[in-house]
Amino acid sequence: MYKAGILGATGAVGQKFIRLLENHDWFKIQALGASERSAGKPYKEAANWIESTPMPKKIADLEVRNCVSSDFDDVDFVFSGLDSSVASEVERDFAEAGIPVISNAKNYRTDPSVPLLIPEVNPDHIDLIKTQTFTEDGSGWIVTNPNCVAVPLAMSLRPLYDNFGLKSVIVTSMQAISGAGYPGVPSLDILGNVVPFIGGEESKIVEEPLKLLGKFKEGAIEHASFPVQATATRVPVLNGHLLSVTAELEKDADEQEVKKALKEWKSPIANFRLPTAPNYPLHLYDNDYYPQPRLHADSESGMQTAIGRVRKSNVLSISYVAMAHNTIRGAAGGAILNAELLVKKNYIYK
Amino acid sequence: MYKAGILGATGAVGQKFIRLLENHDWFKIQALGASERSAGKPYKEAANWIESTPMPKKIADLEVRNCVSSDFDDVDFVFSGLDSSVASEVERDFAEAGIPVISNAKNYRTDPSVPLLIPEVNPDHIDLIKTQTFTEDGSGWIVTNPNCVAVPLAMSLRPLYDNFGLKSVIVTSMQAISGAGYPGVPSLDILGNVVPFIGGEESKIVEEPLKLLGKFKEGAIEHASFPVQATATRVPVLNGHLLSVTAELEKDADEQEVKKALKEWKSPIANFRLPTAPNYPLHLYDNDYYPQPRLHADSESGMQTAIGRVRKSNVLSISYVAMAHNTIRGAAGGAILNAELLVKKNYIYK
Amino acid sequence: MYKAGILGATGAVGQKFIRLLENHDWFKIQALGASERSAGKPYKEAANWIESTPMPKKIADLEVRNCVSSDFDDVDFVFSGLDSSVASEVERDFAEAGIPVISNAKNYRTDPSVPLLIPEVNPDHIDLIKTQTFTEDGSGWIVTNPNCVAVPLAMSLRPLYDNFGLKSVIVTSMQAISGAGYPGVPSLDILGNVVPFIGGEESKIVEEPLKLLGKFKEGAIEHASFPVQATATRVPVLNGHLLSVTAELEKDADEQEVKKALKEWKSPIANFRLPTAPNYPLHLYDNDYYPQPRLHADSESGMQTAIGRVRKSNVLSISYVAMAHNTIRGAAGGAILNAELLVKKNYIYK
Amino acid sequence: MYKAGILGATGAVGQKFIRLLENHDWFKIQALGASERSAGKPYKEAANWIESTPMPKKIADLEVRNCVSSDFDDVDFVFSGLDSSVASEVERDFAEAGIPVISNAKNYRTDPSVPLLIPEVNPDHIDLIKTQTFTEDGSGWIVTNPNCVAVPLAMSLRPLYDNFGLKSVIVTSMQAISGAGYPGVPSLDILGNVVPFIGGEESKIVEEPLKLLGKFKEGAIEHASFPVQATATRVPVLNGHLLSVTAELEKDADEQEVKKALKEWKSPIANFRLPTAPNYPLHLYDNDYYPQPRLHADSESGMQTAIGRVRKSNVLSISYVAMAHNTIRGAAGGAILNAELLVKKNYIYK
Repeated sequence: MYKAGILGATGAVGQKFIRLLENHDWFKIQALGASERSAGKPYKEAANWIESTPMPKKIADLEVRNCVSSDFDDVDFVFSGLDSSVASEVERDFAEAGIPVISNAKNYRTDPSVPLLIPEVNPDHIDLIKTQTFTEDGSGWIVTNPNCVAVPLAMSLRPLYDNFGLKSVIVTSMQAISGAGYPGVPSLDILGNVVPFIGGEESKIVEEPLKLLGKFKEGAIEHASFPVQATATRVPVLNGHLLSVTAELEKDADEQEVKKALKEWKSPIANFRLPTAPNYPLHLYDNDYYPQPRLHADSESGMQTAIGRVRKSNVLSISYVAMAHNTIRGAAGGAILNAELLVKKNYIYK
Repeated sequence: MYKAGILGATGAVGQKFIRLLENHDWFKIQALGASERSAGKPYKEAANWIESTPMPKKIADLEVRNCVSSDFDDVDFVFSGLDSSVASEVERDFAEAGIPVISNAKNYRTDPSVPLLIPEVNPDHIDLIKTQTFTEDGSGWIVTNPNCVAVPLAMSLRPLYDNFGLKSVIVTSMQAISGAGYPGVPSLDILGNVVPFIGGEESKIVEEPLKLLGKFKEGAIEHASFPVQATATRVPVLNGHLLSVTAELEKDADEQEVKKALKEWKSPIANFRLPTAPNYPLHLYDNDYYPQPRLHADSESGMQTAIGRVRKSNVLSISYVAMAHNTIRGAAGGAILNAELLVKKNYIYK
Repeated sequence: MYKAGILGATGAVGQKFIRLLENHDWFKIQALGASERSAGKPYKEAANWIESTPMPKKIADLEVRNCVSSDFDDVDFVFSGLDSSVASEVERDFAEAGIPVISNAKNYRTDPSVPLLIPEVNPDHIDLIKTQTFTEDGSGWIVTNPNCVAVPLAMSLRPLYDNFGLKSVIVTSMQAISGAGYPGVPSLDILGNVVPFIGGEESKIVEEPLKLLGKFKEGAIEHASFPVQATATRVPVLNGHLLSVTAELEKDADEQEVKKALKEWKSPIANFRLPTAPNYPLHLYDNDYYPQPRLHADSESGMQTAIGRVRKSNVLSISYVAMAHNTIRGAAGGAILNAELLVKKNYIYK
Repeated sequence: MYKAGILGATGAVGQKFIRLLENHDWFKIQALGASERSAGKPYKEAANWIESTPMPKKIADLEVRNCVSSDFDDVDFVFSGLDSSVASEVERDFAEAGIPVISNAKNYRTDPSVPLLIPEVNPDHIDLIKTQTFTEDGSGWIVTNPNCVAVPLAMSLRPLYDNFGLKSVIVTSMQAISGAGYPGVPSLDILGNVVPFIGGEESKIVEEPLKLLGKFKEGAIEHASFPVQATATRVPVLNGHLLSVTAELEKDADEQEVKKALKEWKSPIANFRLPTAPNYPLHLYDNDYYPQPRLHADSESGMQTAIGRVRKSNVLSISYVAMAHNTIRGAAGGAILNAELLVKKNYIYK
């Protein structure tokens, strides 16, 4: 078993890491880090547990540590669910100390030397790690996973980009409340309502897919270059971001060709049998009323991206909806899958 | 007072007509029509009242009539909230009997001789009535109001179309449950959920704005001709359809020019002082988080179309959100405003 | 017009005061007070406006003051929507300065010299003011309104207590999210959920009705003395607390007698024609499915208490449900009605 | 494997049976029965599948049969999720044909010869089967499971009744929408709302616990005899009925004694290791804010009854809340557990 630390362990993302790692085949939770206010307390006292399954017994009595690398010399790597206000500094500290950081924070996503990774989309970007200079021997590095809307967007665009090319993408997202963490969205704002804006979200939706679909060439990522336009809205849904997408393809394709490309797409990591990898990373629904967040966000343990309503657009080329579990596929689960691929690729070792 | 009949009086739209007409300055409810099952009963026994204000006392004891023109010879005109399964025949019967029909049903919306009317958008289309041949003397005719998404869409596009021209429009709607009538959407389908499809809705959103923005020329409507693409979704909101719109303009315009066009747009019926006309048919919000259905659907008694998030699109020209109360502005209230304009234009008389 | 100040003007209760007073016949808002952080700013900058109607124009530019009596020498009285953490000190300061305080805060509710007032329930308690010693000349005093569950509970118990006597009451409340203020209840806690506890709520439900139904005798309130048991739960409802009540009467009464007592109850302030007083403070529904918070909380501008499902209990004597708008009847609206009665009784003057 | 038939297989309860039996250790689905309209069709065409997991492949192509015993001669027993409008006749037909019926319908619950069974509450009632006369050889019989509120109520009352005796019980239920089946509760009725009545529900809550807690004596059930009063309300919750309970005990007991009785209660079927039996049928939460339907309804695969807020009542003896998954523990899951006990007790055989 690899020994994992969790930074930001008391927050919503940190708690999701703990729940998803509870019975993990490869990783055991060795250490939990949180803010100074929590440090020194047993986890059960430091955390306001919001997951619906009980706090794992082994975790409850773990003493929370400060998020400094010197307190984590007994781990093989760390997951970071840190708030962006502190992630830059803390993650750098860990990387410089030779501790690999698998981060859900946004801070290093745009760093040219840091992989923004979805194993099924751009596994080859991993080798960008070699360009990082946190340590001389390369033992410390940072890998990030994307924004929770960028994940299902990039997952669904990957087959389209490869088969037909992309000229532009317009997306309206309907995002679940869990995306805002806890306490997050006040109920007075969202009960029976839609809020047509989420601060800071749209620029990530616009930029991250371009890095994700980019080409790794001569030690750098050459970003894809089509324009993306995003309208991010919040809806009273618990889990699962739903995207309404319209795309202009470079090469003409009808509905059937697009569906075929989506159905026949093969995950590049299918053969690795990673514990958290879904059997069907992309699922195409034919029923017009599917996918729905409440019915389908948990499919394949929350790791599947669902697509539906694929049809010709009479303005651009093609239109469809996509949906994925935002705190699993789009956050902690995605980070864990990243770690698994990094183990497989020998970047993480005991 | 003009004497109005209401066809389909026991349904959700019919009840909304009754509530909105309760204290109307010009119209009094003279007669209520419903299906054979209800005919002969006092209204209070025939209807399962779902409005939140009490059933008006005067209405409660009115005997429900059959929806046949011969039973309505004491009215000046009728509002129709009929189901589309019967509206074609019943509305024709009334028109042929010389009783004007102001209809919320979809059946005659695409008829070339029938105005599809939003008073603030295309008041001149009214004269299409003169091309109708239901009666020899022109006393019987039909006027329709548009689909509840087409209303805020056309309201918001009117100033853009007039100032800049339109080349294409892409819209994703987030529609309230009240749009499906009663019992309508099962709670098991929509609580904490989004359904990415509404049967029969998207074609109306695609087609109706083109007639609404069309030109009345030589006795016929020349439809506008740009393509519209629609994705209609259902969200757990009570009232108010929210639209995420992206449009390509013919003439280049920046964000400020578009905002100016929206702000400076003048309603062509502002001087008529119609009782149901909102003071500000279009309201432009600057706050990125507005408009929201729960906060703003009732603005100006549910007759205002709210616009927000106007900004340059990096794919097409411009993007914004629009919202209006679907059962008031988008249905019964819109029909009543149509009737008021028709009175003003001397199409309805005692 | 009487000049009113509002303390805690930027909070949820303060905003409700502002909205309800916007077009008040007797009161005009003269001054707004809030925390030091807000003081000195125009209200529109200090407040995060959460009401669905726009911020009144006259209010938007009012400069927010500190909540100290010396800054409020131009008002005839103040409404207090202060947080309980500061209300004790601030309200005392105002009272001692000779400025009457109509408070929604809980701090002085249990003070033996302070009226806990519902005009329709215990208007005679007002004279308790005379026992207050904040000022020598009696010009400064405090009057409070009850907890938002205690209001509909006391309203519904008043006729029962007077006609039959009460031996005990058991109540389960289902409380709206607006009762927790803003940001208040996190949406992750309440969407599609019920929380079976509200901190600090149950003791108020148990105690306040006893003071409200108490007798004013020889300068003091002799509390009613029956036991009340409360279970306070939170439900995903916007406005309107619903109570399931079972009561043991002292005198035997059947369902019809209890209904008769509720129907025939006369408000003791009916003849005063206070602007905010509902025409029917108690409304008894016969439809088993009524009252419902979403349909009926706004009845009579949110000032009516609705009762339904009155029936014999096979454990205690009688069972019923009661419901009232928690932030209007149960908070700001109740306080305004208190102020109106105090004007009528010549406690407030210009 | 025992071969099970499912009657009413296309309805909400029938679908839940199918999902819960998909990977059952002892039972395989041999036959599906539904109305004439569905009979003859493959299940995937007959059913509007509403479960969130996909329809099991093996089931999809099963041909739906008519609900007549002669079409089910290849099953060892049937589960009935029939509507009460047809259950009386159909279930009798099966029993008379020698096919055991494990029914979720209410029709035979009050029949003196039919066990109303919760394995953890009254397993000995099973032998009532011997008094049934559907067949001469006893091969055909009916066993029922209780109403979905009666289940957690009886589960929680069992230890109290046994330890302290019960004099009376008052319960207010907050019931999930799934309890009404599909399409069930219209979203317009329940979104952001509470409905204070559920037709036909309260009498079951009042009566069924008395049979469940009754004594099996000389071939008959001697019902428990304390009065129960119920107020059944509907809340916008997906799964999980929450009950606010206040009870009068015969023997005085303080909070600690009651908690001890609940904690130390042993399930009488613990040693049978039935596949669907939860490890902890009763769980007592100490956190005042627990249990919550959305967090805890799925505990132990939806088979656990959760209890919280145990405390002295100042009116009756004791008060608490209880919660269980209404369509699993309170319906299909409960019926399956009944079947397992009946296998163990040799009432069902191949």
